[in-house]
Amino acid sequence: RFPLRFGTLRSYSWRQLSALKIAIKPQYFTTHAHSGPPKTMDEILKRTVGPLPTYETKDKSPLPPESNSVEFMHFYRSLDKEQTLEFLDKLSLDFGVDHRNVLELAGKLLETQTRDLATVLQAEDRLRYSLTPRYRQLLSHISRVEGGVKFLVDLRADLIEIISSKASDSPHIRDLSGTLKGLLSEWFSVGLLRLERITWQSPCEILQKISQYEAVHPVRNWTDIKRRVGPYRRCYAFTHSAMPGEPLVVLHVALTQDISSNIQTIVREFATLDTEEDMNKVNAAVFYSISSTQGGLQGVELGNYLIKRVVRELQSEFPHLSQFSSLSPIPGFSAWLQGILSQHRREGRGTGLLSEMEWKEVEAALGMEAGAMTLDSFWKLLTTNEWIRSQSLVRTLEPALMRLCAWYLYGEKRRGYALNPVANFHLQNGATMWRLNWLADTSPRGIANSCGIMVNYRYFLNETSVNSATYLQTKVIAASEQVLNLVSQFHKNSKL
Amino acid sequence: RFPLRFGTLRSYSWRQLSALKIAIKPQYFTTHAHSGPPKTMDEILKRTVGPLPTYETKDKSPLPPESNSVEFMHFYRSLDKEQTLEFLDKLSLDFGVDHRNVLELAGKLLETQTRDLATVLQAEDRLRYSLTPRYRQLLSHISRVEGGVKFLVDLRADLIEIISSKASDSPHIRDLSGTLKGLLSEWFSVGLLRLERITWQSPCEILQKISQYEAVHPVRNWTDIKRRVGPYRRCYAFTHSAMPGEPLVVLHVALTQDISSNIQTIVREFATLDTEEDMNKVNAAVFYSISSTQGGLQGVELGNYLIKRVVRELQSEFPHLSQFSSLSPIPGFSAWLQGILSQHRREGRGTGLLSEMEWKEVEAALGMEAGAMTLDSFWKLLTTNEWIRSQSLVRTLEPALMRLCAWYLYGEKRRGYALNPVANFHLQNGATMWRLNWLADTSPRGIANSCGIMVNYRYFLNETSVNSATYLQTKVIAASEQVLNLVSQFHKNSKL
Amino acid sequence: RFPLRFGTLRSYSWRQLSALKIAIKPQYFTTHAHSGPPKTMDEILKRTVGPLPTYETKDKSPLPPESNSVEFMHFYRSLDKEQTLEFLDKLSLDFGVDHRNVLELAGKLLETQTRDLATVLQAEDRLRYSLTPRYRQLLSHISRVEGGVKFLVDLRADLIEIISSKASDSPHIRDLSGTLKGLLSEWFSVGLLRLERITWQSPCEILQKISQYEAVHPVRNWTDIKRRVGPYRRCYAFTHSAMPGEPLVVLHVALTQDISSNIQTIVREFATLDTEEDMNKVNAAVFYSISSTQGGLQGVELGNYLIKRVVRELQSEFPHLSQFSSLSPIPGFSAWLQGILSQHRREGRGTGLLSEMEWKEVEAALGMEAGAMTLDSFWKLLTTNEWIRSQSLVRTLEPALMRLCAWYLYGEKRRGYALNPVANFHLQNGATMWRLNWLADTSPRGIANSCGIMVNYRYFLNETSVNSATYLQTKVIAASEQVLNLVSQFHKNSKL
Amino acid sequence: RFPLRFGTLRSYSWRQLSALKIAIKPQYFTTHAHSGPPKTMDEILKRTVGPLPTYETKDKSPLPPESNSVEFMHFYRSLDKEQTLEFLDKLSLDFGVDHRNVLELAGKLLETQTRDLATVLQAEDRLRYSLTPRYRQLLSHISRVEGGVKFLVDLRADLIEIISSKASDSPHIRDLSGTLKGLLSEWFSVGLLRLERITWQSPCEILQKISQYEAVHPVRNWTDIKRRVGPYRRCYAFTHSAMPGEPLVVLHVALTQDISSNIQTIVREFATLDTEEDMNKVNAAVFYSISSTQGGLQGVELGNYLIKRVVRELQSEFPHLSQFSSLSPIPGFSAWLQGILSQHRREGRGTGLLSEMEWKEVEAALGMEAGAMTLDSFWKLLTTNEWIRSQSLVRTLEPALMRLCAWYLYGEKRRGYALNPVANFHLQNGATMWRLNWLADTSPRGIANSCGIMVNYRYFLNETSVNSATYLQTKVIAASEQVLNLVSQFHKNSKL
Repeated sequence: RFPLRFGTLRSYSWRQLSALKIAIKPQYFTTHAHSGPPKTMDEILKRTVGPLPTYETKDKSPLPPESNSVEFMHFYRSLDKEQTLEFLDKLSLDFGVDHRNVLELAGKLLETQTRDLATVLQAEDRLRYSLTPRYRQLLSHISRVEGGVKFLVDLRADLIEIISSKASDSPHIRDLSGTLKGLLSEWFSVGLLRLERITWQSPCEILQKISQYEAVHPVRNWTDIKRRVGPYRRCYAFTHSAMPGEPLVVLHVALTQDISSNIQTIVREFATLDTEEDMNKVNAAVFYSISSTQGGLQGVELGNYLIKRVVRELQSEFPHLSQFSSLSPIPGFSAWLQGILSQHRREGRGTGLLSEMEWKEVEAALGMEAGAMTLDSFWKLLTTNEWIRSQSLVRTLEPALMRLCAWYLYGEKRRGYALNPVANFHLQNGATMWRLNWLADTSPRGIANSCGIMVNYRYFLNETSVNSATYLQTKVIAASEQVLNLVSQFHKNSKL
Repeated sequence: RFPLRFGTLRSYSWRQLSALKIAIKPQYFTTHAHSGPPKTMDEILKRTVGPLPTYETKDKSPLPPESNSVEFMHFYRSLDKEQTLEFLDKLSLDFGVDHRNVLELAGKLLETQTRDLATVLQAEDRLRYSLTPRYRQLLSHISRVEGGVKFLVDLRADLIEIISSKASDSPHIRDLSGTLKGLLSEWFSVGLLRLERITWQSPCEILQKISQYEAVHPVRNWTDIKRRVGPYRRCYAFTHSAMPGEPLVVLHVALTQDISSNIQTIVREFATLDTEEDMNKVNAAVFYSISSTQGGLQGVELGNYLIKRVVRELQSEFPHLSQFSSLSPIPGFSAWLQGILSQHRREGRGTGLLSEMEWKEVEAALGMEAGAMTLDSFWKLLTTNEWIRSQSLVRTLEPALMRLCAWYLYGEKRRGYALNPVANFHLQNGATMWRLNWLADTSPRGIANSCGIMVNYRYFLNETSVNSATYLQTKVIAASEQVLNLVSQFHKNSKL
Repeated sequence: RFPLRFGTLRSYSWRQLSALKIAIKPQYFTTHAHSGPPKTMDEILKRTVGPLPTYETKDKSPLPPESNSVEFMHFYRSLDKEQTLEFLDKLSLDFGVDHRNVLELAGKLLETQTRDLATVLQAEDRLRYSLTPRYRQLLSHISRVEGGVKFLVDLRADLIEIISSKASDSPHIRDLSGTLKGLLSEWFSVGLLRLERITWQSPCEILQKISQYEAVHPVRNWTDIKRRVGPYRRCYAFTHSAMPGEPLVVLHVALTQDISSNIQTIVREFATLDTEEDMNKVNAAVFYSISSTQGGLQGVELGNYLIKRVVRELQSEFPHLSQFSSLSPIPGFSAWLQGILSQHRREGRGTGLLSEMEWKEVEAALGMEAGAMTLDSFWKLLTTNEWIRSQSLVRTLEPALMRLCAWYLYGEKRRGYALNPVANFHLQNGATMWRLNWLADTSPRGIANSCGIMVNYRYFLNETSVNSATYLQTKVIAASEQVLNLVSQFHKNSKL
Repeated sequence: RFPLRFGTLRSYSWRQLSALKIAIKPQYFTTHAHSGPPKTMDEILKRTVGPLPTYETKDKSPLPPESNSVEFMHFYRSLDKEQTLEFLDKLSLDFGVDHRNVLELAGKLLETQTRDLATVLQAEDRLRYSLTPRYRQLLSHISRVEGGVKFLVDLRADLIEIISSKASDSPHIRDLSGTLKGLLSEWFSVGLLRLERITWQSPCEILQKISQYEAVHPVRNWTDIKRRVGPYRRCYAFTHSAMPGEPLVVLHVALTQDISSNIQTIVREFATLDTEEDMNKVNAAVFYSISSTQGGLQGVELGNYLIKRVVRELQSEFPHLSQFSSLSPIPGFSAWLQGILSQHRREGRGTGLLSEMEWKEVEAALGMEAGAMTLDSFWKLLTTNEWIRSQSLVRTLEPALMRLCAWYLYGEKRRGYALNPVANFHLQNGATMWRLNWLADTSPRGIANSCGIMVNYRYFLNETSVNSATYLQTKVIAASEQVLNLVSQFHKNSKL
């Protein structure tokens, strides 16, 4: 009936269980023992989500016993997918804002219009308090229990899953998610985060997690991870005191002589005999992977702060270091290209993505007769990594794919901002779209995702704050000449 | 003109300066150098307190540069008392809520009354957002700068000082204080605090602070503090990762054979040759001092949580330990008594605090003729510690003072709750008013404050949550037979 | 020509190089630069191994510069195998004891025979000093340089390799090894070692080394090592402050309900869903692997102390824990058996290892005709793990192999002590030969080494010191009834 | 009867007791309970000091139980002064070397003169082993018990006290002390020591000890010690893993603009508002105090190594730092001067220490008639700090006292080395006697000890190894022109 994928929920079920075991200690249950028949959702909610104190007594309400929070967590974790949805629905609908009360206070506020400031402020404060959902207090209390913050992060991940999978479209579910995001934003504000450098001396537990979480360029084995924390490499993470041993966002950096133009030299072919780094070989810091690990922290800004902290860290370690750049994947480029080709086919017309000349050259390189290549076969060509092995195809395809990719990154928008999420992330941070790199990721994955192209978003430190503000406010993208040239090539030679 | 005492502001000025030096690092000023003529308050405020983004763009607004926060902090710290008040006044008045906008959205909400839930929720959320003061964003940003959280704690201390000294009675100053309290409550929520046991191996810096902060029974020298962290003693503190090295609330515990009935045996006369504790001598944990160190965290519940965490800690260290109790001072008892006596004198009547018999006995013990003692001389008697040296006076005064003190603690109320703040604190936590102790603090300070009486608030662990809820909701105080007997003695023998 | 295998030297060459890089810092070479033509061995030795100060000035001799030690280390590490041997030969022969001087002082001592005690003591002390090899001072100095202690441990490993491979049989090489052992014994005395518990939170570097060093039951992958430091398992190591990050001796322990009788349940089939240990399931501590990691510390007692420390550690963690036992391999049993069979064959006689009845049963189980089985085919049978799959063979062979193995462990001696080195180790520690276990290690390795048999050496804590003294002084082995019964079975039914 | 002062023994008796409490844990006594009548010294010694194994079995002897060592420690610590002496006398005499055996083996060695090298080495090794005192093994075992190393350090302190107080002059007591020193030298070799920087964040326990141990310029209070670990100051100590929390040797450093010429600016008048150090103000590192804390480590070189390690540490922190110097007291100068004056008086002659002119000037400055000043009154003048307050006296006395002091430091010798122990220490380390400073320590103590003069021993880093070797081998002192000029002034103007 309900097509929840609930990917994340499954994946951490084991960790959830273990976290639970730690959290539920006997002492919590001296008074509220789990005896008697199993409780219904309504019973549980009624008991654990206390009423909101009145405005007058809000600072005088007794703290609910910890067992309340623990019981809620315990019960929630015992639910299956459908029950989870039902439970969250009830929670958000029946224990949210008291709308009648809000209306009444809004009415009263309107009446104060002509009154003195003190009265207005007082009426506003009452109104503000009335807009607090009843469940907000429970969420706060849960955060104080051991393992509670992690529970809430995971709960939010469930909410996001429900919303994005369209398992529910109820507005109060979105409200609950929003309330939780607000709380998490405060708890995970950057002053409370700790920057940790991960090395081969770090706990195995952390390194294993770092390996698992690395989504950009998967870690293949322990030799691989050892190299990524070894000489000429840095790995940093933010951790939080309420979730010890859990990296929240991880940044991998390569220290290189020039800004790298392909990923193979960083994660595949790299080998050094040096056990100490030669300062003179370190001219550029290349951020080649950044991963958020907690789905439930979506919308809580961490990556941006991590990059800034790491830049400061690296500057103090290498005072002469001046080049900072990402080497980023372009997820979605191939899919976008396919979309265009499909559309062209549906519309029954040839494609204008390549010029006629280019089209013929490809046919020639493939040993086909002129006119023999269909849109379909062209597409198949691109998504297998066959063409990589043919020097002539590589040479032939380069100009077209590079300009299309430049357009995809620079010209395709969503609500005015860059459609590509990685581009959007770095542009928001104030980076410049600096260089597209041909044959930058020749792994099957790289070919399949972006025809092997990668891009450097470069951080010119004295321009980032201006860039960031400009992009966010005017949606104008800072780009290098190379990128702008490619875009203009696109305009000349391609038709979508 | 303006009689601000600003005690706290002065006292940490040195620390403020040093914190500032750390916070202001050259890199922050590359773009916003402090050049040109000094700025006025209005300029500073206008620049550093950015406008609130519109509801639509609230998740898309660029982060202001850190230099903004640092400039604000720097400027604020350069102000003298009067300027501080002026500055906070401007900040809270001109950069608070946009009242016009609130009214408009409140009006729109009223119009949704008959609409679907989604529309209502949307209108509520817009209204809620409009109730956010403009300065709230700046406060959030400051918390992310190094030393920022401590700055905000100190800023709140200034606000509290202003409000309580009546230097200003503007409602928007109170609003600012309230907004800040809300933020601090989230940042200092218990899940983010770390319990630390302080020992003789702790950093000197911490022990020096612990000594300075101890207000209940002042630490006289390093031998004294060494003893308070030595065998049969425990000292715990909550610390927070955003304010390293700074204990927020400190609890001193004595491990004793019975619940102590006087403080001398704990902090003065105690000496042990044992270097290891004998488990069999530890039957009771006596909380003999609890101090909050940060004025700016007023209203942020910490002490209650600390006691609960410490109980759990002690239980795991001493599984057989079952008696938990405070040994608490009674600040205000003498002042209250004096107030009554003054009133009686003003009213030109004799006092009914003592029975006639008792009055005569006191005169006899003093070697006075019957009827010779005035209210004045009686009062003087009590507040000097002369009477302590006379066995007959001690014997004679005991019943009257004990029952008066019981009444003061049990019967005197403020808004229905116990007037005495220490009593109110422990009763809110769920403790029982258990035993008044005669000659419990015979130091000059103890005599002057509470005629030498101290009180145990006992924590019966399986009753605290019920007690706490009862007290907070019905204002009924849990008290032992001893206390209730004394109260009934009071009703029989004293007239106020 | 010279058949040195130099296994160890090779294996740490990389680590040596890296250690060297750390050790050789520019500042050491300000005065003694490595300029000019490369030095010969004699030059290097002459310069770096200073003369022994005279007896009178022994406390007044200047410290040689650190560069001496570093130069020696550097030079030594640049040598190949043959050069190493030549160098150590020169060092030990030309820079050892001054024999002429010793003789002279021995003569003088004899003349003091009738003199007063002071004179005798003085003469003895001079003689003792004269017996100090000249190189001893250099070794002491090297230990003070960063990485020096590790260098000396590796140097001793080379000496042991040379001696045991018979690459040299010179007595002064043995003297050098003995002198070095004496020094290492002092530096690695137990008071200076640190017990570390290795967990999944330990540095990756340590866990990787632990995995590499585990020789008894090889670690297959990271899941495997994670399990060995997880619930119901303990892993302890001694480390030394002069060799940080380097475990010296490692002990793996399983916490079980009963003393384990096979290794599969510990390292292969074990899986637990528990994330916390259930105290009630922990009745026995089984030491299933102990590995020394530093060849150069041969003869320096560490394993014995580690077991004792771990026992104390476990007792304090599990106060009710009372059963301590090893589960040990029996290396050499199969080889010993083969040796006997070969001899029997050479001597042209049938074997008396099995009774006639047993012999026939084996033939029957193999489906052979009576008398068809030769010694050769019998032997082949045992060393492949074919027989394990035949229930009848397993049943048939058990009594014979168990009694032979008991005899091998209990009866076969070298200089009066148990021939089997693992047995000898545990018996010296005071353990009792407690139980032989059939089908205890059915891995190919286990079958090949000891026909799948393993043995528990049990530590009865109140008997270990007596057992140890008895074994070392009288060579009598403490054994259980099971073992003694098997031995007596052997006497009845087998002839060697 | 026996005039032992035993200062140290008393002073740490409390610590000894506490260390003992820790060391004696119940489990050690399961088999060797302290029951029955108290043991005599002989019984204890006989049981705890086992016989030396034979040469053949030396690697096969059982480890004695830990309880042996603990019993020995326990018993020793229960002894009073006289008993201690008696006990150590017995131990060293009856459990030392077997002289008869030594003689026999010395005889055998002489017989090998013409034999092959192997035989000679074997005979030497047996002889060497026979020279091992029987108690050496016990000392080694004690070092392995918890608190054992500290016990042995204290035991050696007792021996040194006995020897230096002449409570005993037996040569075997000296032998015992020498054996122990040899062992301690190995355990405290520099590779095993840890350099710790002491700061205000260090454990209180350490800072309290540092304060107590500071003998050169006593620490007056906690503000004083806080300053000595604050900005522009460094405090370093060596610690050892076998004596945790116990600084062994402590070095105080001031970071200054020029090499300091008086101590007041360092420990008295110094105050800084800086909370961070200005690198540009740090041109010189002045070692103004070095203290060894363990009497029992006399003769074990630590201070020299500490200075060298600290120099390296400072160089890496302040790469441009190039001036290293001590600012040292001159204990003994006043006493030496008094000795000369007394002798001159005894010999009935006037003093030639001052020229006639100078003598008259002093009389004039004192307002005396010419010829009125006696040697006695001159001496009294110098040892009270009256003269400091008279500008004319200060001016008059300077040249004479400075040249006399230069001679005292440079010219007065003991066994050829500098008589002054501080001078001897720094000269052995390779420092240059660089500058005498007038009015450098005007505290009563400074006047009384050395007429207020202090001296800089300067460390020119590229000369120290040559200087050290020269001084130790040829006894020639490296001195600056200033010092040499003063010495030549002395020769011209003073007669001893």
